[in-house]
Amino acid sequence: MEVKNKYIVIKQNIDGAPEESDFELKTEPLSLSIEPGKDEVVIKNLYLSIDPYQLNRMKSPCAFQQSMNFAGSVIPGEAIDGYGVGRVVATGNPEFKEGDLVSGLLTWGDYSITKKVASKIEAAMLNKVETMGLPISYHVGLLGFSGVTAYAGFFEVCKPKKGETVFVSAASGSVGSLVGQYAKLFGCYVVGSAGSQKKVDLLKGKLGFDEAFNYKEEPDLKSPLKRYFPDGIDIYFDNVGGEMLEAAVENMNPFGRIAVCGVISEYTNKGRRAAPNMVDVLYKRIKIQGFLAADHVKGYKDFLSTTLEHLQVGKFHVLEDISHGVESIPSAFVGLFRGDNVGKKMVKVAGD
Amino acid sequence: MEVKNKYIVIKQNIDGAPEESDFELKTEPLSLSIEPGKDEVVIKNLYLSIDPYQLNRMKSPCAFQQSMNFAGSVIPGEAIDGYGVGRVVATGNPEFKEGDLVSGLLTWGDYSITKKVASKIEAAMLNKVETMGLPISYHVGLLGFSGVTAYAGFFEVCKPKKGETVFVSAASGSVGSLVGQYAKLFGCYVVGSAGSQKKVDLLKGKLGFDEAFNYKEEPDLKSPLKRYFPDGIDIYFDNVGGEMLEAAVENMNPFGRIAVCGVISEYTNKGRRAAPNMVDVLYKRIKIQGFLAADHVKGYKDFLSTTLEHLQVGKFHVLEDISHGVESIPSAFVGLFRGDNVGKKMVKVAGD
Repeated sequence: MEVKNKYIVIKQNIDGAPEESDFELKTEPLSLSIEPGKDEVVIKNLYLSIDPYQLNRMKSPCAFQQSMNFAGSVIPGEAIDGYGVGRVVATGNPEFKEGDLVSGLLTWGDYSITKKVASKIEAAMLNKVETMGLPISYHVGLLGFSGVTAYAGFFEVCKPKKGETVFVSAASGSVGSLVGQYAKLFGCYVVGSAGSQKKVDLLKGKLGFDEAFNYKEEPDLKSPLKRYFPDGIDIYFDNVGGEMLEAAVENMNPFGRIAVCGVISEYTNKGRRAAPNMVDVLYKRIKIQGFLAADHVKGYKDFLSTTLEHLQVGKFHVLEDISHGVESIPSAFVGLFRGDNVGKKMVKVAGD
Repeated sequence: MEVKNKYIVIKQNIDGAPEESDFELKTEPLSLSIEPGKDEVVIKNLYLSIDPYQLNRMKSPCAFQQSMNFAGSVIPGEAIDGYGVGRVVATGNPEFKEGDLVSGLLTWGDYSITKKVASKIEAAMLNKVETMGLPISYHVGLLGFSGVTAYAGFFEVCKPKKGETVFVSAASGSVGSLVGQYAKLFGCYVVGSAGSQKKVDLLKGKLGFDEAFNYKEEPDLKSPLKRYFPDGIDIYFDNVGGEMLEAAVENMNPFGRIAVCGVISEYTNKGRRAAPNMVDVLYKRIKIQGFLAADHVKGYKDFLSTTLEHLQVGKFHVLEDISHGVESIPSAFVGLFRGDNVGKKMVKVAGD
């Protein structure tokens, strides 16, 4: 059987803020039967995760990309791989059977074939999904990388103590919204920044942040931090970099910890870099640490049991921002850098 | 008995690079007898430690000084306290007797009185010195803060593994020269930067660094780091901040560690700040950590036994740079920021 497979490519490398016109929809026939002897798995994509880090894979080749050893470059004209959940529709691999729900590196399109993915990153990273009675979308965001990023970054990198003060930037985003909730439930004082009044209301209302502010309405980012942290910041969970990082360093307490989870302010703007005061870093013995969820797989069990517990007692709010259809991938992705999304951005490619 | 006590003060706050004309010599009569009932200790200073951080205490009051909670401001016209070794010449404190050799916070002058010190920093921090057959000057530098700073910064903050690559800036300085030697003896590949060919020769010859370079002859600091670290830097022991920190971050390996021990390039230049690439910090999971020796007193025993062992087998070279007399304090201090010193800078106030 053959189907029409639609997928998204970049027309050329993208070095500034992405625009929808940087992307193109391609259509190719795809066979749903596996040739004998091949161990391919063909997956019908259901949900695709849309993440800011993909922009760094789309940039022109440069020295900086050497550091991205966890993910290769996106090549203009070729299919783009990204995390998602789908259903097996054909398989030559005995580990998977038709109808299996799987998660892993899929393709930004209607269908994925594991062989292609495997050639790019050595391991196919395809896993069977146990739904545990939760919506499939939860397995893309919360139980995919967003949750473990938030959990490991907060608990393992920041090593919080009850009663400490926590600042989260991009706090209504996929990771930030979870960090804030983990921190509150753990017993910290939590303040978040976001880019609209609507998001601020959401943080203080639904998510239970102690305080929140709209950074776009603050001419000097040091002011809100002084205002909401009169006794200083113990932990800064940094999703944005740039000026916010500088302001946070200035307001950190001695022995403060900064988890560098994202630098979205710099992904689209080569020239702008944070220049945190290193004299503060020295005298206040601040720790600034970059981390990736992939390094913290050991903690996944802990993450899962804590998170399921919070969900069961109704104390955890999972924010999802879902677009529909392969055609919506470019606008979904471009919107990340304009702050369009509230919570985890994903594209629902097909109903289950 | 009364003596003439010469001591050094600043005429006004110093906000740029210090000059000798910023300082003034004062002379006051000092009584060497203690009034009954007072627990003062009067010390004849022998060696005084001359350290760059003192400049930060001399700046105009500003928000930044709040972070220096371990040391108060230096007040124009008043005596300046700093680490040193001296001999007790009068005492109303039963814990000390005349003739005791002591180390602690002394005064930049001929004599120190503990009472003054105690009022400034709560604890007098006066300790009896066991010479252990070593020169008295060793108790100011190597066995004072320089040694434990180097040791704790390298072993506790950077957590080295044998065979890792280590870069040390200001490598011929009091701390850098020790870090390089600890790292070599531990089994690392060590490269140092310094500000003259003479210093470079010293690092590669006497101190056994694998490589060294003169940063003043490098138009782009990334080049020497690429040249001497073709496989990247695992550990950067940062004494300088600024451009060197940026260049190091760009050349760090995944999971690299940066100990922020000093930011001397920024002490004299308010405008110039390092803007390390936080995208590198993120994707390479780099840890940047400020630290102070005072937080690592627990490790002092370890430090002492390792260091004495190295000394006994003749494998450790202690670089000292000694000026003579209270009058030489201003030029000794000012010279730190011109890179005049080789190894630990101190002033010998009096012979024992």
